[in-house]
Amino acid sequence: MSNKPFANLTFDEKLDRLALVAVRVGLNLQEGQEVVVTASLDHIPFIRKVVAEAYKAGAYAVTVLYQDDVAALARYQNAPDAAFDYTPKWLADGIADAFRSNAARLGITGANPALLKDQDPSKISRANVAASKAMKPAMELVTRHAINWSILAGATPAWAKLVFPDLPENEAVARLWDAIFSASRITGDDPVADWKQHGENIMKRVALLNDKRYHALHFRGPGTDLVVGLADDHLWAGGGGVCGNGIFCNANIPTEECFTTPHKDRVNGTVTASKPLSHQGTLIENISVRFENGKIVEAHATAGEEALKKLIAVDDGASRLGEVALVPHSSPIAQSGLLFWNTLFDENAASHIALGQAYATCIKDGETMDEATLNSKGANSSLIHVDWMIGSGKMDVHGVFADGTEEPLMRLGEWV
Amino acid sequence: MSNKPFANLTFDEKLDRLALVAVRVGLNLQEGQEVVVTASLDHIPFIRKVVAEAYKAGAYAVTVLYQDDVAALARYQNAPDAAFDYTPKWLADGIADAFRSNAARLGITGANPALLKDQDPSKISRANVAASKAMKPAMELVTRHAINWSILAGATPAWAKLVFPDLPENEAVARLWDAIFSASRITGDDPVADWKQHGENIMKRVALLNDKRYHALHFRGPGTDLVVGLADDHLWAGGGGVCGNGIFCNANIPTEECFTTPHKDRVNGTVTASKPLSHQGTLIENISVRFENGKIVEAHATAGEEALKKLIAVDDGASRLGEVALVPHSSPIAQSGLLFWNTLFDENAASHIALGQAYATCIKDGETMDEATLNSKGANSSLIHVDWMIGSGKMDVHGVFADGTEEPLMRLGEWV
Ligand SMILES: [Zn+2]
Ligand SMILES: [Zn+2]
Ligand SMILES: [Zn+2]
Ligand SMILES: [Zn+2]
Repeated sequence: MSNKPFANLTFDEKLDRLALVAVRVGLNLQEGQEVVVTASLDHIPFIRKVVAEAYKAGAYAVTVLYQDDVAALARYQNAPDAAFDYTPKWLADGIADAFRSNAARLGITGANPALLKDQDPSKISRANVAASKAMKPAMELVTRHAINWSILAGATPAWAKLVFPDLPENEAVARLWDAIFSASRITGDDPVADWKQHGENIMKRVALLNDKRYHALHFRGPGTDLVVGLADDHLWAGGGGVCGNGIFCNANIPTEECFTTPHKDRVNGTVTASKPLSHQGTLIENISVRFENGKIVEAHATAGEEALKKLIAVDDGASRLGEVALVPHSSPIAQSGLLFWNTLFDENAASHIALGQAYATCIKDGETMDEATLNSKGANSSLIHVDWMIGSGKMDVHGVFADGTEEPLMRLGEWV
Repeated sequence: MSNKPFANLTFDEKLDRLALVAVRVGLNLQEGQEVVVTASLDHIPFIRKVVAEAYKAGAYAVTVLYQDDVAALARYQNAPDAAFDYTPKWLADGIADAFRSNAARLGITGANPALLKDQDPSKISRANVAASKAMKPAMELVTRHAINWSILAGATPAWAKLVFPDLPENEAVARLWDAIFSASRITGDDPVADWKQHGENIMKRVALLNDKRYHALHFRGPGTDLVVGLADDHLWAGGGGVCGNGIFCNANIPTEECFTTPHKDRVNGTVTASKPLSHQGTLIENISVRFENGKIVEAHATAGEEALKKLIAVDDGASRLGEVALVPHSSPIAQSGLLFWNTLFDENAASHIALGQAYATCIKDGETMDEATLNSKGANSSLIHVDWMIGSGKMDVHGVFADGTEEPLMRLGEWV
């Protein structure tokens, strides 16, 4: 790694540094591991750096599965209707096999968030259900942190255009890369050390929250008055962690959140999104929903409402919460003032909730429990897991104890 | 398809036409099939056309597995030594699963034929053995024609540079695409009809050869005096054919050869290659070998001799023949005068033999036989199948009957 100040590095050297952080900090890849990478065809120059870095770290094999927005769109435009209930199970099963034999997983996000905006929402929903079902065995190994994995972002023209609509494409892409570099905390002189320090800070906050044993969180802000019950034996998590294979990894780059498992039957009140949501190529704006005993009973959006309604109808768990997360408004991503239209970034700019599947790792001994036991603690099950931003500089959060008393936790978006 | 004469088409329209021939003639893809495509990152614009065409033909899913020369090289330059005995078995098994559930296979060749020329031949050989072992179940389904498959070529800068070393890159790539279009027989007004006619012509020649029941072929030319015994119950094949799943496909585009299974123990004499061979990134030039009772007992090459020797030492079958093929010197590919450094083209420009695995389909009822039964007929088994050009305008071929009498079959490279 170069010792030059980040600002003096060439773009190529900056990409090198992000590749290094992906492999050494994100995956913490060990000699003899294999890696399965998913990325966009727009990421080729960056992926080539990742591949070289992975082999330097001792990878035995790096398999890159390139996704192509153009090909994905061609399917919606040309394939027969029955195709949308079909998905290549052999590939999903193969990836699960890879994880079972200790392959690490690296995902590079950046696909066009609005790719499918003109496509039939029912086809999109059917295709997502088919893909989620096929990928369930693989994704369970990921959500249970059986293996080390990491997800980070690479700029693409379509994404950059959405974040910087007024700039010419080249400039927009360059600005988005800069935003990714900053948010991913690679702009210091020693990003590996910076990540270590950042992880320790989050871990301290997580320990504090775990000591509290709150029964619920109470969110109050514009359009929001929501009580989110927390699951029995819930655990707060955040930053990096040790996976089932014994390897410490940073699963999200960037990561700013402390998150835990809500109780699937104890969420009540109204909540209004503080940012729009891009879900599988559709933009959903100004979401507002009402919960009763854990379940959404009313849902509105000023754009993409049909997609939202299809999403929460996927299965019973899709209309219940699987995650609640606290992020201070002073997070560098929030301070950038950018709307990324990408969950990895936007969820680390604001407190959020997620519809769908809960993380077993956020229940005490959850990794060893079967689904029914997890459900009995209040942890939700679903084919989906969709994060959704509710926090802002105007949000207050109280911790609620089992006896109903409350104490302030965040005031105007900042830790008290 | 446009009705304009081929020469008046834009490059983009020419690619459209090759994509159409790949899907409709090569695969003859059926509604509801899935397709697994392998291609180089240099083929993205062409692959996008193939994907759209496949969905138009009714594909339920098209999975493109992109290969990257740069990533492949990065492995040789950076990976630990033990990596070269390792291969992602989950992917190979997944592909075999796909074929078992009736997925079609489309391969686009064009990777840099000289990519690995400076790499350690022993690492290359170990990596190839590991990959071949993992891919054996999938490749068996392909060589037995259980499913419809096709392999064709797309130009890449590295390949074009090798075929046209004196031209600037852009021009070389354009010239190579033109050569691919001509060789692939898509330059007529109706390439689908042209392929039908071409297939019928080859079928007539195949029927003629099958009627002869030759016991052996005798090749005589500069540096060559070789008797290739033919397997018991051998069948000649060529052009397209009906696969195990009932679909007629053209497995090779282009294809000009009539080929059959030699007897693994009845090959004797000396043979000198008429063209260099590019094997897994290494160029092997001026090959000359001597066979005794089917097995190579002496092997020389002026370049790449070590790679050649490693290749024939992979297993017992690697030093024996699995295919013999006749191609007239008047084939359009031979007449182009180009050396393609790519087996798909060069093997259709000259009579050839192949080391290694025989095609079960070239033995009567071979698809239903186990390996031991196939071996007892003289059909060879090996992890490898490497074609190798021996024909030219100076080659005479005689058909040898069981009683030892001979009749002329090709004279100076042309059918008698
Ligand atoms: Zn979260
Ligand atoms: Zn989440
Ligand atoms: Zn052949
Ligand atoms: Zn062959």
